[in-house]
Amino acid sequence: MIRHPAFEPDPWCIRETTLDLDRLAQTESVFALSNGHIGLRGNLDEGEPHGLPGTYLGGFWEARPLPYAEPGYGDPEEGQAVVNVTNGKIIRLLVGDSPFDVRYGVLRRHERTLDLRDGVLRRTAEWTSPSHQTVRVRSTRLVSLSQRSIAAISYEVEAVEAPVRVVLQSELIANEPLPAGDGGDPRGGSAPTAPLRSEMFESTDTRAVLIHRTAASGLRVAVAMRHGLDGPEGTEATVEALPDVARLVVAARLEPGETLRLVKLLSYGWSGVRSTAALLDQVSAALSEAHVTGWDGLCAEQRRYLDDFWAHADVEVDGDPDLQQATRFGMYQVLQAGARAEQRAIPAKGLTGPGYDGHTFWDTEAFVLPMLTYTVPRAAADALRWRHSTLDRARERAAQLRLRGAAFPWRTIHGEECSGYWPAGTGAFHINADIAAAVVRYQRAVEDPAFEVEVGAELLIETARLWHSLGHRDARGRFRIDGVTGPDEYSAVADNNVYTNLMAQRNLRAAADAATRHPQIADALEVGPDELAAWRDAAEAMLIPYDERLGVHPQAEGFTEHEAWDFEGTAADQYPLLLHFPYFDLYRKQVVKQADLVLALHACGDSFTDEQKLANFDYYEPLTVRDSSLSAATQAIVAAEVGYLGLAYAYFREAALMDLDDLEHNVRDGVHIASLAGAWSAVVAGFGGMRDTGGTLTFAPKLPDELTRLAFRLRFRDTVLAVEIERERATYRRLAGAVIALGHHGEALRLTDDRPVSLPIPATVRRVAPAQPPRRGLRRQE
Amino acid sequence: MIRHPAFEPDPWCIRETTLDLDRLAQTESVFALSNGHIGLRGNLDEGEPHGLPGTYLGGFWEARPLPYAEPGYGDPEEGQAVVNVTNGKIIRLLVGDSPFDVRYGVLRRHERTLDLRDGVLRRTAEWTSPSHQTVRVRSTRLVSLSQRSIAAISYEVEAVEAPVRVVLQSELIANEPLPAGDGGDPRGGSAPTAPLRSEMFESTDTRAVLIHRTAASGLRVAVAMRHGLDGPEGTEATVEALPDVARLVVAARLEPGETLRLVKLLSYGWSGVRSTAALLDQVSAALSEAHVTGWDGLCAEQRRYLDDFWAHADVEVDGDPDLQQATRFGMYQVLQAGARAEQRAIPAKGLTGPGYDGHTFWDTEAFVLPMLTYTVPRAAADALRWRHSTLDRARERAAQLRLRGAAFPWRTIHGEECSGYWPAGTGAFHINADIAAAVVRYQRAVEDPAFEVEVGAELLIETARLWHSLGHRDARGRFRIDGVTGPDEYSAVADNNVYTNLMAQRNLRAAADAATRHPQIADALEVGPDELAAWRDAAEAMLIPYDERLGVHPQAEGFTEHEAWDFEGTAADQYPLLLHFPYFDLYRKQVVKQADLVLALHACGDSFTDEQKLANFDYYEPLTVRDSSLSAATQAIVAAEVGYLGLAYAYFREAALMDLDDLEHNVRDGVHIASLAGAWSAVVAGFGGMRDTGGTLTFAPKLPDELTRLAFRLRFRDTVLAVEIERERATYRRLAGAVIALGHHGEALRLTDDRPVSLPIPATVRRVAPAQPPRRGLRRQE
Repeated sequence: MIRHPAFEPDPWCIRETTLDLDRLAQTESVFALSNGHIGLRGNLDEGEPHGLPGTYLGGFWEARPLPYAEPGYGDPEEGQAVVNVTNGKIIRLLVGDSPFDVRYGVLRRHERTLDLRDGVLRRTAEWTSPSHQTVRVRSTRLVSLSQRSIAAISYEVEAVEAPVRVVLQSELIANEPLPAGDGGDPRGGSAPTAPLRSEMFESTDTRAVLIHRTAASGLRVAVAMRHGLDGPEGTEATVEALPDVARLVVAARLEPGETLRLVKLLSYGWSGVRSTAALLDQVSAALSEAHVTGWDGLCAEQRRYLDDFWAHADVEVDGDPDLQQATRFGMYQVLQAGARAEQRAIPAKGLTGPGYDGHTFWDTEAFVLPMLTYTVPRAAADALRWRHSTLDRARERAAQLRLRGAAFPWRTIHGEECSGYWPAGTGAFHINADIAAAVVRYQRAVEDPAFEVEVGAELLIETARLWHSLGHRDARGRFRIDGVTGPDEYSAVADNNVYTNLMAQRNLRAAADAATRHPQIADALEVGPDELAAWRDAAEAMLIPYDERLGVHPQAEGFTEHEAWDFEGTAADQYPLLLHFPYFDLYRKQVVKQADLVLALHACGDSFTDEQKLANFDYYEPLTVRDSSLSAATQAIVAAEVGYLGLAYAYFREAALMDLDDLEHNVRDGVHIASLAGAWSAVVAGFGGMRDTGGTLTFAPKLPDELTRLAFRLRFRDTVLAVEIERERATYRRLAGAVIALGHHGEALRLTDDRPVSLPIPATVRRVAPAQPPRRGLRRQE
Repeated sequence: MIRHPAFEPDPWCIRETTLDLDRLAQTESVFALSNGHIGLRGNLDEGEPHGLPGTYLGGFWEARPLPYAEPGYGDPEEGQAVVNVTNGKIIRLLVGDSPFDVRYGVLRRHERTLDLRDGVLRRTAEWTSPSHQTVRVRSTRLVSLSQRSIAAISYEVEAVEAPVRVVLQSELIANEPLPAGDGGDPRGGSAPTAPLRSEMFESTDTRAVLIHRTAASGLRVAVAMRHGLDGPEGTEATVEALPDVARLVVAARLEPGETLRLVKLLSYGWSGVRSTAALLDQVSAALSEAHVTGWDGLCAEQRRYLDDFWAHADVEVDGDPDLQQATRFGMYQVLQAGARAEQRAIPAKGLTGPGYDGHTFWDTEAFVLPMLTYTVPRAAADALRWRHSTLDRARERAAQLRLRGAAFPWRTIHGEECSGYWPAGTGAFHINADIAAAVVRYQRAVEDPAFEVEVGAELLIETARLWHSLGHRDARGRFRIDGVTGPDEYSAVADNNVYTNLMAQRNLRAAADAATRHPQIADALEVGPDELAAWRDAAEAMLIPYDERLGVHPQAEGFTEHEAWDFEGTAADQYPLLLHFPYFDLYRKQVVKQADLVLALHACGDSFTDEQKLANFDYYEPLTVRDSSLSAATQAIVAAEVGYLGLAYAYFREAALMDLDDLEHNVRDGVHIASLAGAWSAVVAGFGGMRDTGGTLTFAPKLPDELTRLAFRLRFRDTVLAVEIERERATYRRLAGAVIALGHHGEALRLTDDRPVSLPIPATVRRVAPAQPPRRGLRRQE
């Protein structure tokens, strides 16, 4: 989509060489900048044309009613939606008498580049106005990874050929009108229009600030801007502020080759409790700090932050330049989404668009945190600390549902359940085990003893309580979990979903272990020995259905008895199925939206034999339509494990290119953070074969024919590890940290110093991979 | 509720001897008059105070949007709601300077009587105004069973003790304000406010007419009134009409003992296609006919209609006067709901209130039509002809759901699906088999060859097609129907619900039989021999799950493995459970809202052995909380069959007294037509043991200890049959018609002439009945 035939895909940049007005919304998502606190969509500096203007703050939301044709007990009545807050990106340019607008005049050149090492979005344009005056525009935008409240823009305009009068208007705009959504796709968002009420506006010198408050959720947001100017003599600037707009106006006359340059510093803050005065001081202070740092300083900090990130986390994909680019792009987006979220939810779209109302789902714990845990562990810890901060709301929800412990919401911004369709929302209790698994993963991978004491143990214990109250013993003594929804959203409310039951089993055991390790926490939470024993007993007796006749695990009881979906009779344009068939029909047939049993094969791999993995993968592959972006990465990982390396490669591509190629046709609403993080997992857990469920970190590297080399780096406890996969051998190297024991294809391995250790890769049995459903073959760019 | 300690329950009347303002809404439902076309709630003549004013027309509705927090494909976007149409019941009275309002002055006497043989609601009141003037008011109201468009009121006011000036205002009022609903109970309605837009208003002499149209559904309604007057000399009358009100004003001066009498004739008509002029003529013509008939004539016709009804349908219950009264009241309400519905839906509440938005459900076919088929067969035929008239909408719905044949709506007025929660709506496909069973029942019981040709065969064939496309053969060749909802609304979306599968089996076979009997119809509907064979094969292979371990049928696959509901931990005020627990929790546990497997024991009795019936009843009885009024009657029938006569008697009472004792606390929204019809079934199918699923009509009479005698009459083909059940013997007598073969406790019996035949009743094995769930014991008046 962004890639252009005239340019080689750049391993470190995403470059767009022509501006396609029909794809503005898509590119705004791809070029979005964020640090997890501030999110700026890649809107053009001048604001218009736009696909969808967007400026978001992590955790900042407005309430909206959730209506029901037939309400039921426990249906959440209030939803939460991400808010398009005050837009500080706007810098309008008047050239002579004409506003710079790419729809008019002649756009001679337009290029945008997202630089994954510098962490900036660069734009260059050369434009001749309708009055035949030509200017060059260069802007560079960053959202600081080092200074959490700060975004900055350097904007230059240069006269070409002839002298020209220019005016810059650098603005803050609140309540900007949004284009009407198409409304038909439930995956879009429902962002409120004009959600902000002015509380304060102020301007002095080159500075201005606007403070607003949301009507229903009562959250305050403050935005401040401050400018530096560099222009020819006679350049003049004035500033003004009104309730919903603040504006610095700069007028200059440029001779050919002369440049007017504006550096705009932005500071964003919000609070549900702090006063207007406190917020004002907060954003002003952050702005002062940024001013002291200066533009060059901010850019240098940004580069240092990213250099450090790539040094410990880079993935090299040799042999497929598109995929190299896409993999780094994906990691960059995941970093942006999580780096400075700092105890706010990481939404499914990060802060790149309003899709899914800005909600966080199980995606974060199940797909995003694996990458963050091994690359930016502090961000993983913060995400789980955010979950922990919502524990009281989850306890209340459990009580409302007449359950014990904590029931975390299927979708939320602030912690309350915001799902308006319970069979595919509240019913999907597995999110609680996904959170527990993320806790266990983090605790295994990171030396952070305070975490378990402050966060981990309590999360494990309260989710274990939930599972114990959700399940029951049947007459044969088996522990059943009936009537819940697994990861596959084309099934719902089924008995004994294998993924759910296996994950609950691990959750129960991990909680018992944690309670045993921390008797004081157990005491404080009133976990007695009986409860602890009950968890272990339930885990031991967990019912895992198995279809003896077919020799596969049914996704849930009865699944393999259901009618097969009529794939032959389903046209290509009837996908995604949820937009063309009722849930009623989808739920009762064998059709899988996204890896479910196959996800269990990865997440709970040690609960299956190799033969079962192969049989199960073969059974589910022709049923899995991948109408969710959460599927391909998992299929890549398991395909690699069972030996379908070509298929694994194809799914790795699909996960990695989800947004650059807009494979789901909805990147306009934001990028798919989980799919992008999944691409990392496809490398590390798929081709790298990394598993962390046992006592040590083990690998089983394999290289698909399509690639010539793969390499990745990761952190494990206090070690930084580099793994390189070539055709015949894999090489392990310790870049930092202590002696570490690893596994390589079942063989034990110790890295005692920093010398690389190479080991041969056993041959993979070549098998013909099962086919995907008709018309749901592997996706390519269209 | 209506019954008063000072009065014996009257076998033919419902009498209220004091006016309880706190129970106005409840009594308005009980005293509602209807003929299936017009429904007038029992509001006081003077309009206020009221619980809930209500005037309804069968089939007349307004659209309302059905909102969804998370919409899904196939969710109906538009609902339908019964409309409170122009109120013609109002006759206000001014006594001296004071409006007659029971909340002021002194109400010396107030009595209302619903006369089940005369078919009128009588009211007498003696009231002293705040200015100390006393009047007697006598009104009689009828909704004509013989003249479908006509209602009439005779209103008399008499001066007592002193002369008095009186003014009567007889009105038509459109868009009267409705009290705000409590909104919390999904079983209530959502009737729109001010739904009518004036199209015409006119008045002359003592006549006036108002014509309105609904905004969204575009239906026109016309109401005309005409008056007769009888008063002392000097009585004056004027008439006027405005867009939303028409008014006849009569002023008179009455000496003590003198009476002013007003007879008000009302005519109601509506149409979705006819013009204002045509509707005006329609109601005027009907009014002329009623005027010619006159008040006395209308009353005489009404009595004749009811004498005929009772002569062929009466049920005598000796030994329990309450129950005698309640049984006849129930039959009367069912008659009112269905008698003249004439190809409009019969709603769950009849036309007695706005509950459930005025929708019809499966209740009609499954509970109401059994009584109508054997007592007012023409009304049963009309109800099914109405279903047939909606066949195209049902075919469209099936196509939308990607199914074949016809998918009738779970709830509707006009034929479109109006259910906003599919697991307990569209998912309950059994309604289609319930319709088919009603067709089969009607065709067996009534000599009406045109019916099968015009209606029956097509309904059977299109529903069979639905079942065949809904189910599939599994690997073992069994025909499965997965993921549907059975009658019990505390379970949903389960595989192989026994009731559904057995009913579908019968549906498939009945369709094959009908197609075989009518090859021309089969040809016209393109039923080939292969399709016909496929139906029979599917029926033959139908999977009926059975739990060998427990020796009972699971309601659906897996049901008996689910956790038992925590009845001990559920407080009395947590019922109905649906208002206190999420569906999520209800669906996954063993708790039954209403007879489901037990309904199968009755409706498909010949698919179970006697031992299975007993074991199943014993298993489900302690799980069945009867949060639906549709349960008690079925439990009565099956309890009687398996030998729990005391329990059967208790459930018969519960079904019959549902409304008079307001057992569900929602009679304010209208009476429960299906429960009341179920009380008839409790007598005829329960204690009478009547079954019509074999070739002949069979009986198995039994008398519970609590009663001294039961007797009932019914029509079967061209025979009118009287059955009398005494302690030791039952007596059968043919009142009209041809020789008839019957069964009595397995013994064949022929009534060749009109002489009674008495046969001994075999002793019932006395067993201790299973208990109901704790705190859900048999209900009594509170």
